[in-house]
Amino acid sequence: MDQIDLMKELHVPSEKKIILLVMDGLGGLPGKNGKTELEAARTPNMDTLSRSSMMGLSTPVAPGITPGSGPGHLALFGYDAIKYQIGRGVLEALGIGLELGPESLAARGNFCSLDPASGEITDRRAGRIPTEECARLVEILRQITIDGVNITVQPVKDYRFVLVLKGEGLHDGLTETDPQKTGLKPLPVKPLRKEAEKSALVLNEWLDKAFELLKNERPANGCTLRGIATNPNLPTFKEVYGLNACAIATYPMYKGIARLVGMDVPDAGDTIESEIKTLREKWNDYDFFFFHVKKTDSYGEDGNFDAKVEVIEETDRIIPDILELGPGVLVITGDHSTPWALKSHSWHELPVLLHADNIRTDPVTEFGETACIMGSLGRIRHTDIMPLAMAHAARLTKFGA
Amino acid sequence: MDQIDLMKELHVPSEKKIILLVMDGLGGLPGKNGKTELEAARTPNMDTLSRSSMMGLSTPVAPGITPGSGPGHLALFGYDAIKYQIGRGVLEALGIGLELGPESLAARGNFCSLDPASGEITDRRAGRIPTEECARLVEILRQITIDGVNITVQPVKDYRFVLVLKGEGLHDGLTETDPQKTGLKPLPVKPLRKEAEKSALVLNEWLDKAFELLKNERPANGCTLRGIATNPNLPTFKEVYGLNACAIATYPMYKGIARLVGMDVPDAGDTIESEIKTLREKWNDYDFFFFHVKKTDSYGEDGNFDAKVEVIEETDRIIPDILELGPGVLVITGDHSTPWALKSHSWHELPVLLHADNIRTDPVTEFGETACIMGSLGRIRHTDIMPLAMAHAARLTKFGA
Repeated sequence: MDQIDLMKELHVPSEKKIILLVMDGLGGLPGKNGKTELEAARTPNMDTLSRSSMMGLSTPVAPGITPGSGPGHLALFGYDAIKYQIGRGVLEALGIGLELGPESLAARGNFCSLDPASGEITDRRAGRIPTEECARLVEILRQITIDGVNITVQPVKDYRFVLVLKGEGLHDGLTETDPQKTGLKPLPVKPLRKEAEKSALVLNEWLDKAFELLKNERPANGCTLRGIATNPNLPTFKEVYGLNACAIATYPMYKGIARLVGMDVPDAGDTIESEIKTLREKWNDYDFFFFHVKKTDSYGEDGNFDAKVEVIEETDRIIPDILELGPGVLVITGDHSTPWALKSHSWHELPVLLHADNIRTDPVTEFGETACIMGSLGRIRHTDIMPLAMAHAARLTKFGA
Repeated sequence: MDQIDLMKELHVPSEKKIILLVMDGLGGLPGKNGKTELEAARTPNMDTLSRSSMMGLSTPVAPGITPGSGPGHLALFGYDAIKYQIGRGVLEALGIGLELGPESLAARGNFCSLDPASGEITDRRAGRIPTEECARLVEILRQITIDGVNITVQPVKDYRFVLVLKGEGLHDGLTETDPQKTGLKPLPVKPLRKEAEKSALVLNEWLDKAFELLKNERPANGCTLRGIATNPNLPTFKEVYGLNACAIATYPMYKGIARLVGMDVPDAGDTIESEIKTLREKWNDYDFFFFHVKKTDSYGEDGNFDAKVEVIEETDRIIPDILELGPGVLVITGDHSTPWALKSHSWHELPVLLHADNIRTDPVTEFGETACIMGSLGRIRHTDIMPLAMAHAARLTKFGA
């Protein structure tokens, strides 16, 4: 019996709503005056909130492990990110806003250059063709039809595209077609298990037709498929927590991950302001809100300390609006750290603030990585956050008699 | 997918070297002025280092569990010590410096006294014969030969010896021959699984020949075999972490455990001075160094507070030499606690210092058990140390997209 099973068994109804406010890539490293981005930011509202909250530090997946956006969010949502892995094709599809049903197979595609005589790959990225050329070629590939299969092809960036197939009996467990070096022909898709045989036949038929359509194009006269994966069919928030859940996010990737766990995803515009407006509009319709702020991560990736500080300060300014709605539980944290100093995701713990009734006190009076060492939440894992939020929302009954 | 699998999948090359400095039995308990051995020791170098390190406390195997040297070190090396158990025969063999290949079967032997008429055991330790007598009897047992099997017998101490058999198809899963009380005959070795049948035949043949050779000796006219085990064939450091690893240790047991995970073990002399000399000589040849200091444990076992303090102070004096080499990551901790007050290994947490770039700050300004409560590493497990060291050495790539 894992945590998901336990939650399924113990959840009960309650009037208390939960908000999970995620500043993407929130965790940082010391910069100016030895303070992290969060510590340097002026966050009067979160600091005040910290006096009536349980504070702590959370490890996203496991110590030393740097999570991608998929595992980071799944862990926040209470799913063991090592057990519930999302395939790369699925994440790529979600990232450009494609919706994946239960019987969808998604793959990352690369346009490549082939020697017309031998069929061997001469450039695995087709000279990094521009996105417009990619879009033109995708338009050509959209001519392909296969009986009983609904096909979507979508350009991503440069030489990359996404292929999504929907149809009965399409299972994963398939090899990739990129031989990983030039001088070799693209490989056929092979099934790694019996259930994937139909998928292999369909994908190879699609590839044959694609090669035929592309043969006179230059430089992109071929393509490869990688990370072929199905929708992981995760148990939904409704099943696991009994929660009607709503995701408020501006970027396709996070909307997509939220959809994977059964959250509704209304249009929330492009800004933190439009997101808070959406939260207000939807407040009466849901029990749970995942509220995602993207740009903390983007500026962390850029190594831009000041800009990340500004996004944190902007987020701090919406705290009164959020509190005005009267959430039973408000959790503020991030999916993973993206310290300015590393310009990338990292393994460092995340500061966590859990605001609710019936909390244990601690001496923390500001929201920051160092201050949270002294917090009453202690050192937790991301998968602990949802059970704690559920408990504080009076949504979990006793385990055992 | 366990941590070992995850490390296998995520490790990438880096120029940054890792040093794991292990003071055996480092953790202590309050003595003079309420300070532990480590807290009482003058450690100016480690205290200075603590200001630019992540500090914390680590549980070796699990709360309340007192580990032996085997599990303590395996956990430090990142292996789940409950999953990867090393048989007692193997540890005994390693402890006296025997090298074990992949097809080795090792057993602990006890000389015992038998009633010549009935064959029943009258003394399970043969009156605790002196080590010299043990050595003489072992010399006699060395006459035994078995077709296709390479046999090593080595005296240990008093009535104890080690038997190592090398040959094809020797697997473990065998019963012990000591009936655990007098008045009973030594038992034959029995296979607990089909693969162990050959081993049982070989061991019983060896025992028959041993009883024949010993029958006129007094008081040791018999022997028993216990803890019969094979090399556990652990995944190596190269496989798991991609690290070329070197062990710098003075005692056979620790060299042996290091060999089990594929570390090279150059001769490092007998003193901390000769060990640091070896570290310098080998610096360019390896990515990872396990540096073992033994005597903290020995003096802990003796209950000698002052002598343990002195070894810690001696170790502190080599810190500048270590830092001069420019390690990317330096971890200082112990395999388990050996508090002077208990004169034995204990379950208490170990203080940990992780020195690297890109660290989270904390208010800790000395290396000691109490100070580490406030550390930014928090409360971890020994198995977390290697993933954290790998992350800080830029040797782990992102998990998931």
